[in-house]
Amino acid sequence: MPLRSDWSEKSCPMARCLDVLGDPWAMLVMRDVLSGDRRFDELRSRLDVADSVLSKRLAALCEAGLLEKVPYTGTVRPRYEYHPTAAGRDTAPILQALARWGDKHNTPPALEWTALEVYCRRCGTEATESADWCVSCRAPLRPESTAWIRPSQWDDVRPLAI
Amino acid sequence: MPLRSDWSEKSCPMARCLDVLGDPWAMLVMRDVLSGDRRFDELRSRLDVADSVLSKRLAALCEAGLLEKVPYTGTVRPRYEYHPTAAGRDTAPILQALARWGDKHNTPPALEWTALEVYCRRCGTEATESADWCVSCRAPLRPESTAWIRPSQWDDVRPLAI
Repeated sequence: MPLRSDWSEKSCPMARCLDVLGDPWAMLVMRDVLSGDRRFDELRSRLDVADSVLSKRLAALCEAGLLEKVPYTGTVRPRYEYHPTAAGRDTAPILQALARWGDKHNTPPALEWTALEVYCRRCGTEATESADWCVSCRAPLRPESTAWIRPSQWDDVRPLAI
Repeated sequence: MPLRSDWSEKSCPMARCLDVLGDPWAMLVMRDVLSGDRRFDELRSRLDVADSVLSKRLAALCEAGLLEKVPYTGTVRPRYEYHPTAAGRDTAPILQALARWGDKHNTPPALEWTALEVYCRRCGTEATESADWCVSCRAPLRPESTAWIRPSQWDDVRPLAI
């Protein structure tokens, strides 16, 4: 993790959020867990990240209460899945806000077809006005009512994993 | 800046956003510029950050097109203010999403009175349902129509600086 001050006691809630989520890998781990990846190998493969980096981020996200380790069987050694907690699921609006900015302001021409679409599963419309609120059916865009259609997954539209 | 891959060409727009804003200091610089701080000394004082860290972040945010340097007069040496561009102003919804998470999930008991309130200046109501959409008057919470009431500024409620 980058060396910086402890911001967990800051009066500004943005700083307190960044104390947990101010690392870009942490944000992408939450993206992939909410997209359905749960196991170390799945996350490592999707993120293309070094084992040590991923281990540290997963441990930090568990300690901060965004993920919880759940053992799974069927392997020789005990292994764990990483499941999002309520606090972890509430990162979805942040991630969706990042995506709106990235699509609007940092899209190289070769990637213009890749805009992330956030669908409201309650009313079946694409959310285009807000990262966290469906303007059509007037309800929050929570993971359980949202689907992300990601550039690499046009043929695999699925609800966010909760 | 932390050593990591270049994410500017990633197909995922969250990663492309984090390529610019994945550093926690960069987020806080945008917070303070949108709050009205424009000059190096003002930012350094508010952020309590080393000169070299702040210089690097400001240069990176200018290069990425979120800030622009504007010279100001009245000093012996030429000096600059940092003004937000349209892409910089569009970080407000991200910052407001971070604040919602921080207030909900990472608030020590001693800080429970410090929740950031985001006011819609169009209709005069506090935005409580969304980080980027006023549910009351059904309009986007853009910097020009928003005021942040920050914990340290109860006596200084001002619109976001654009």
